[in-house]
Amino acid sequence: MIVLGIDPGTATTGYGVVRRDASGLVSLIECGVIRTRPREPLALRLKEIYEGVRELIARHRPGVLSVEDIFYSRNVRTTVVLGHARGVVLLAGAEAGLEIHEFPPAEIKKAVVGTGAATKEQVQFMLTRLLRLRAVPHPSDAADGVAAALTCCMGARIPKLPVDAAAALRRRPSAALRSRPRGEP
Amino acid sequence: MIVLGIDPGTATTGYGVVRRDASGLVSLIECGVIRTRPREPLALRLKEIYEGVRELIARHRPGVLSVEDIFYSRNVRTTVVLGHARGVVLLAGAEAGLEIHEFPPAEIKKAVVGTGAATKEQVQFMLTRLLRLRAVPHPSDAADGVAAALTCCMGARIPKLPVDAAAALRRRPSAALRSRPRGEP
Repeated sequence: MIVLGIDPGTATTGYGVVRRDASGLVSLIECGVIRTRPREPLALRLKEIYEGVRELIARHRPGVLSVEDIFYSRNVRTTVVLGHARGVVLLAGAEAGLEIHEFPPAEIKKAVVGTGAATKEQVQFMLTRLLRLRAVPHPSDAADGVAAALTCCMGARIPKLPVDAAAALRRRPSAALRSRPRGEP
Repeated sequence: MIVLGIDPGTATTGYGVVRRDASGLVSLIECGVIRTRPREPLALRLKEIYEGVRELIARHRPGVLSVEDIFYSRNVRTTVVLGHARGVVLLAGAEAGLEIHEFPPAEIKKAVVGTGAATKEQVQFMLTRLLRLRAVPHPSDAADGVAAALTCCMGARIPKLPVDAAAALRRRPSAALRSRPRGEP
């Protein structure tokens, strides 16, 4: 399962592409940001974000799109403009026929760190642990995209096994354990 | 000049296609709504809106897209979801290389009726007058789309004339008058 995680923003949209293999092992394929020029009209910036996400989907062929939900800032105007960016991200996912999941920021923190009140640094620390990275994904928007993707992997239900296989697993508990991502607390 | 006017909404997106000829005469080509199914996921509804707007652009080949700005409702959640819909409308316009104008609701009312505090009924009445229609555009979202398009036509600057032509017009003031939309108050 390949998951494309996106943290939308009109200036900087962070993304992370994470693979979860049959044994439950998660690994980072790519992460980065789509930047737009601040002086360009909103419509052109939305086009850049849309094309950037489409390009990522074409290149990695994910099955799932995981998008961070809106953080309601005090400035309603900012939040609404962010909604525009989020709209074109969801559109790109729908056009590619991806399974789409949306997670509020607190749920992402909870999935990665264990608490919805985790700090940015705690999230970044756990990301590097869970994905066995040498350094924190940079810039922080890219890390947020990776966190969104990882949330989807962590929350993914372990596929139901046929009765025979389940019985075999019960005899070999270590194999069953491997079906959870390595390093998960 | 053909203007596509859009009043974005996640459930119902109203549109109006208005032509303004060289003499300043404005006429309605088409109006209607793009409806989405309430039970569908947001991403699929955004796809329907986007495809609907693209189809209108392909059919009428407008040079200008006029989009109603967000009305900030008390419910921030509603306003933000509306931002998503508006995002995909602007995207469709940017992809087609259209000139894009955005107008707050009050500015549309002011352009059509003469006051930003006009009621919906007053806007609809003036629309039928200015466009010489037999009936009010229906449903009201379609009328809002038409009003957005008309605002762009009314606000369109009269192209600057070469000196000779301007002098000729001064000698024939009636011709100069015709360069404003007929029926404009």
